[in-house]
Amino acid sequence: MMHTRSLHRLSTNQIRERLDKHSVVIQPMGAIEAHGPHLPVTTDFLVADRTAAAVCDEPDGDWWLLPTLAYGRSLEHQWAPGTVTFSTRTLLAVLEDVGRSVAATGAQRLVFLNAHGGNTALLEIVCRDLRLKHGLLTFVIHPFLPADHGGLSMEGERGLGVHGGADETSIMLHLEPDLVNMNLAAPGLPEWHEQNKYVRFGGSVGFGWLSNDFSESGIVGDPRLASADDGARLTGEMVTRMRHELEEIGRFSFGGPDRC
Amino acid sequence: MMHTRSLHRLSTNQIRERLDKHSVVIQPMGAIEAHGPHLPVTTDFLVADRTAAAVCDEPDGDWWLLPTLAYGRSLEHQWAPGTVTFSTRTLLAVLEDVGRSVAATGAQRLVFLNAHGGNTALLEIVCRDLRLKHGLLTFVIHPFLPADHGGLSMEGERGLGVHGGADETSIMLHLEPDLVNMNLAAPGLPEWHEQNKYVRFGGSVGFGWLSNDFSESGIVGDPRLASADDGARLTGEMVTRMRHELEEIGRFSFGGPDRC
Amino acid sequence: MMHTRSLHRLSTNQIRERLDKHSVVIQPMGAIEAHGPHLPVTTDFLVADRTAAAVCDEPDGDWWLLPTLAYGRSLEHQWAPGTVTFSTRTLLAVLEDVGRSVAATGAQRLVFLNAHGGNTALLEIVCRDLRLKHGLLTFVIHPFLPADHGGLSMEGERGLGVHGGADETSIMLHLEPDLVNMNLAAPGLPEWHEQNKYVRFGGSVGFGWLSNDFSESGIVGDPRLASADDGARLTGEMVTRMRHELEEIGRFSFGGPDRC
Amino acid sequence: MMHTRSLHRLSTNQIRERLDKHSVVIQPMGAIEAHGPHLPVTTDFLVADRTAAAVCDEPDGDWWLLPTLAYGRSLEHQWAPGTVTFSTRTLLAVLEDVGRSVAATGAQRLVFLNAHGGNTALLEIVCRDLRLKHGLLTFVIHPFLPADHGGLSMEGERGLGVHGGADETSIMLHLEPDLVNMNLAAPGLPEWHEQNKYVRFGGSVGFGWLSNDFSESGIVGDPRLASADDGARLTGEMVTRMRHELEEIGRFSFGGPDRC
Amino acid sequence: MMHTRSLHRLSTNQIRERLDKHSVVIQPMGAIEAHGPHLPVTTDFLVADRTAAAVCDEPDGDWWLLPTLAYGRSLEHQWAPGTVTFSTRTLLAVLEDVGRSVAATGAQRLVFLNAHGGNTALLEIVCRDLRLKHGLLTFVIHPFLPADHGGLSMEGERGLGVHGGADETSIMLHLEPDLVNMNLAAPGLPEWHEQNKYVRFGGSVGFGWLSNDFSESGIVGDPRLASADDGARLTGEMVTRMRHELEEIGRFSFGGPDRC
Amino acid sequence: MMHTRSLHRLSTNQIRERLDKHSVVIQPMGAIEAHGPHLPVTTDFLVADRTAAAVCDEPDGDWWLLPTLAYGRSLEHQWAPGTVTFSTRTLLAVLEDVGRSVAATGAQRLVFLNAHGGNTALLEIVCRDLRLKHGLLTFVIHPFLPADHGGLSMEGERGLGVHGGADETSIMLHLEPDLVNMNLAAPGLPEWHEQNKYVRFGGSVGFGWLSNDFSESGIVGDPRLASADDGARLTGEMVTRMRHELEEIGRFSFGGPDRC
Repeated sequence: MMHTRSLHRLSTNQIRERLDKHSVVIQPMGAIEAHGPHLPVTTDFLVADRTAAAVCDEPDGDWWLLPTLAYGRSLEHQWAPGTVTFSTRTLLAVLEDVGRSVAATGAQRLVFLNAHGGNTALLEIVCRDLRLKHGLLTFVIHPFLPADHGGLSMEGERGLGVHGGADETSIMLHLEPDLVNMNLAAPGLPEWHEQNKYVRFGGSVGFGWLSNDFSESGIVGDPRLASADDGARLTGEMVTRMRHELEEIGRFSFGGPDRC
Repeated sequence: MMHTRSLHRLSTNQIRERLDKHSVVIQPMGAIEAHGPHLPVTTDFLVADRTAAAVCDEPDGDWWLLPTLAYGRSLEHQWAPGTVTFSTRTLLAVLEDVGRSVAATGAQRLVFLNAHGGNTALLEIVCRDLRLKHGLLTFVIHPFLPADHGGLSMEGERGLGVHGGADETSIMLHLEPDLVNMNLAAPGLPEWHEQNKYVRFGGSVGFGWLSNDFSESGIVGDPRLASADDGARLTGEMVTRMRHELEEIGRFSFGGPDRC
Repeated sequence: MMHTRSLHRLSTNQIRERLDKHSVVIQPMGAIEAHGPHLPVTTDFLVADRTAAAVCDEPDGDWWLLPTLAYGRSLEHQWAPGTVTFSTRTLLAVLEDVGRSVAATGAQRLVFLNAHGGNTALLEIVCRDLRLKHGLLTFVIHPFLPADHGGLSMEGERGLGVHGGADETSIMLHLEPDLVNMNLAAPGLPEWHEQNKYVRFGGSVGFGWLSNDFSESGIVGDPRLASADDGARLTGEMVTRMRHELEEIGRFSFGGPDRC
Repeated sequence: MMHTRSLHRLSTNQIRERLDKHSVVIQPMGAIEAHGPHLPVTTDFLVADRTAAAVCDEPDGDWWLLPTLAYGRSLEHQWAPGTVTFSTRTLLAVLEDVGRSVAATGAQRLVFLNAHGGNTALLEIVCRDLRLKHGLLTFVIHPFLPADHGGLSMEGERGLGVHGGADETSIMLHLEPDLVNMNLAAPGLPEWHEQNKYVRFGGSVGFGWLSNDFSESGIVGDPRLASADDGARLTGEMVTRMRHELEEIGRFSFGGPDRC
Repeated sequence: MMHTRSLHRLSTNQIRERLDKHSVVIQPMGAIEAHGPHLPVTTDFLVADRTAAAVCDEPDGDWWLLPTLAYGRSLEHQWAPGTVTFSTRTLLAVLEDVGRSVAATGAQRLVFLNAHGGNTALLEIVCRDLRLKHGLLTFVIHPFLPADHGGLSMEGERGLGVHGGADETSIMLHLEPDLVNMNLAAPGLPEWHEQNKYVRFGGSVGFGWLSNDFSESGIVGDPRLASADDGARLTGEMVTRMRHELEEIGRFSFGGPDRC
Repeated sequence: MMHTRSLHRLSTNQIRERLDKHSVVIQPMGAIEAHGPHLPVTTDFLVADRTAAAVCDEPDGDWWLLPTLAYGRSLEHQWAPGTVTFSTRTLLAVLEDVGRSVAATGAQRLVFLNAHGGNTALLEIVCRDLRLKHGLLTFVIHPFLPADHGGLSMEGERGLGVHGGADETSIMLHLEPDLVNMNLAAPGLPEWHEQNKYVRFGGSVGFGWLSNDFSESGIVGDPRLASADDGARLTGEMVTRMRHELEEIGRFSFGGPDRC
């Protein structure tokens, strides 16, 4: 993605001139990972890349896009060919290097725009580590939250809209319908999930899972409920919300003279 | 803590005999970190250790306590003397070693009982990594969730009950009143938090913070609202809930012949 | 870049069906790094991405593109804002993870299409390490070789066409003229280089250098000699050559029954 | 263990006030590892924890206990279930983090009170590394030295009182008789040891060993020779000696104006 | 090797007095690795050690030899007993430590005299990393370049004189004829190499290889073409050239007031 | 050192034929580190190299020398120019790689012949780690033990004969008198050492030290007491003892069918 707000369109001299401590640098983060038989492995990469571009489509902002990181931490899908995954330590090192490099631009606000749930916990860790090490203000925003990160599943998904389900499939039907094969869309809705009170998405107990713990295809949710219309609506909502988030981030301060 | 359900009370022969794949091994996790002028640095360690003991006070269960890990990832409090903190990579290595060792006992269920919010994201990561590497069923339970992890703050804390605030102070007044000095209890309730819609605890934007970003003392919340009665009630509720969680964990299965 | 030959356009099931040990997987590699005042920091990323797409523009091939890695090892330009660089160890880990993931697809041929000289030595290392660890056949191809890797400088560059010089600027004038500002094009042609017999690009002595060892702007070469016409010619030549290279790679075998 | 001299009983403000460069911070170190059929896996942890508490039972001292590290480097017992062991690199990282955290308290003397022989060599390494990195004065003291670290075996153990033998069993009979099952006490006294002149404990040749190199149970020594009376005597002696050691440590200086 | 120009013959005081920023410190680098049935595993170590000594046989120079590193990165020969190889990360760490230590001597010029092709790419990486981290001027020189690093093969080797072939065997026949068994000299000259246009030594495509990809013995080249006379001539030429290289290195500067 | 018993004199085929599980492979280990104004920095390297050669001067043995490692862990002398030191982690990695490589030769006995006290603790660690990982029998022998590792100081050194003192200087006067400058020999005998009961070499308390904690020159001991005659006697004794040790190592077995 080469975009009017791409930081990488600039020369080093332009970066010196245009960025200061109020500038917001955005690192979109995707994943290349198995999404069942009906979706391409690029799904998360594509969502990150496209929504980041849409959010930043404002020529006058002080928002600067870095190139989208295609690969993330997709260990839960490592069993399926086509998943390209970093280990936990590799992604940690990658993000530390991005943070150090951004701190050298003069900008002080770094936002990870994250489209893959498997990256989220590590981003939370890195946001603190980079604040401590470089004094950066660090943030994570999400196009949409799947059910395992506090989002709501579509009705009919029984709280399981986590991977390749209704929302994600809808968004892909809107963004790249040619890459979706609805004939192969099949649900992954194991019964134990509804029977549990605590060990479930949104429950009080966290649990380690791999996508093939839920279904042979790795789908967690029900893609049959997806539609391009829902995808258009969801995409619009997420872009609008992320813009508002970035505006608040641009104004954010912890306050006090000795804090940035 | 040496407890009737302590795994470490047993000999290696007894462990071989008594543990099987249904057994639940519990690793309590605390922290030694600054908690403002009114609370001791042991607060999280003590809460983890005591509530783990209380939860397991059932002589017939198949629940097995490991010794509480005193130190965790407390980088947000590294600025304050008395904080003993692991780096991100150190805690990652520690938990990987614990997981490998538990997998060698024959038990297949490993629960982290975590009393420190700064450990949470890393535990989520490790739960997946251990499931992938050793086939363990892995879980995280929490005595109580502070506001930055989805819990509710006490009324009057404006959503900021995160560190050394009303709930945590109440629990300490109940568990170890001699270690609490209410004369020094002072709030950390910065105004910007309420004014923000997205960048706030429970908001849609994650952000990296250090405890002295909120107040000079590192307190985030209002400990003046604490009472021993609230502490007794909260402690009772969390022990009861964690027992129910462990019971569900003991019955948990992803289902299917090829999944544990 | 989303391309008809993008591996990530496929679902995991399609990857299982279409890739076998004869398939060639291509990982384009760029860099985001300072290129003086007249070129954008994206130069190497853009060259990698565009030429990879052009090379693979053959719908019937068994060639599969991974998403271009935007960041590489650009430590020689770390002094200049806008450079986003991995450390040596980070890039090593990144490429090991890519190799492991490609080995899991069933393909046995992995080609790094590398547009940044600072990545080259590490790619040579990784090619051996991945062959040893996963049995992959591994290759590195280059859109064009700068003078420090055995390529020829343009006449007038005195053997110094290494970074932001005539060839690279010409190619950018062809690919993205709007991102080039020829008014700011200035040479970096230190006199010592011609006077040396051994310590020079193409000489028998290797030497460690940072780009600001050559000029304040970090340019090594003479961009004033660039033209869009040269860029068009160079781009055409490199695409043609790389296609021939990929064809030979597709047929390559070390021979013998026990060697792939 | 929560003790009147526990550093973690204090708040960060109290730590600032009470600790200075003369203060001695003590990190007790145990292990959770197989100790044959007659002793619990907690043996070393328990000995470290109890003797550290006994040694510091002086309300007026400037000695400060950290929480006992339950886990150590127990790779020689990794074959036996119930051993929870850090790898060499994990324990190295753990101790570096403890050292960095202690250096931040203002204290300048850090003592490792170590009850597990498998930790000793790594502690020697870390003592130097922390002195070099943080300028700390660093020390290791031992409740008792087994035969492989220069201690004397009980008569009848033929120089093999190293693990689960007479001394260790006696101490456990004194400290926690309920956790000892003398019916299962059986010796591990291989004959080759006495026949060797150099390759033996206390000999001039160091050698790598795992506990099951000596006996199937992992016992190295003869626990049948143990008694609670001996345990009481040994415990008393070790506590007295360690107090004297700490007193000398409190006065210790390398001398000279530029050395601490 | 203890040599009149050995840095290690000096005391620390002498090093303080004699070395300054013009001094050239030389780290010879070999390998212990399989060289087929006719050559000893020490071949590269011996060549590095002997030619370094010969080059420095000038009592008045400001050139200082470090002890030759016997082991290098020989992963391509790991399959053959007698190869002692560092992993990529180990050699990286070794060379970083050597660089840090040399920077502390006051010398500013560090030359790696490298006799093993498998070290070359890592040395190129380390030269840059050490220049960046310590400001050292760093160089790599080679006794002779095999065909995979741009050297010429002897006629008759079809461009394959890479490992244990004519040149290397000749040099050993000159330096240590007793260690060479010409009766066992047999070629490794696979036919595919000549048939390829790109994937070949000196071709435009880099490729990962292990020595047993070329022949069962691991030989790549034709040692039958070797002679002691050629060895004497080659040795003389390489020593003469390396002296000239070191002289130029001693005069080298990037120029400018702020560059060393 | 190239020696009749050098493993590296052999070809890979000879190694396959001659080494079996009874063979003893010896890795001599030295250090390049400051030894005060009267001794060269090579002292430990030279002692390791020479005594290893002398010990193995028996053409019929099944003992095989690897090239001496010149560099070790010399962090206590890092402050003095001419010290070339590995970090703790680097030496750990180096020794792991040596162990893995030796295990691939078919030999099962690996002996570290160590002439530098700063390596000792790490060797103890590695001996266990290699036994666990590769099943090797691992040993450490020492030419002589300095006072900090249980050896006796010469009378007059007050228990401080640790670094550059009487014994080490005597041995150098015997082995390489031209490299010793007795005019600069001066003692490092701080008074505190004799006054201490516990914190001293040979005392019950381990302590972290750097060599300049004892004297400005880094000497710990009294080199004025040295003589070439003592050196000759000491060298003879150490060579004789190490031969006996190697003979016992060659016969060593832990016994039992399932133990090597």
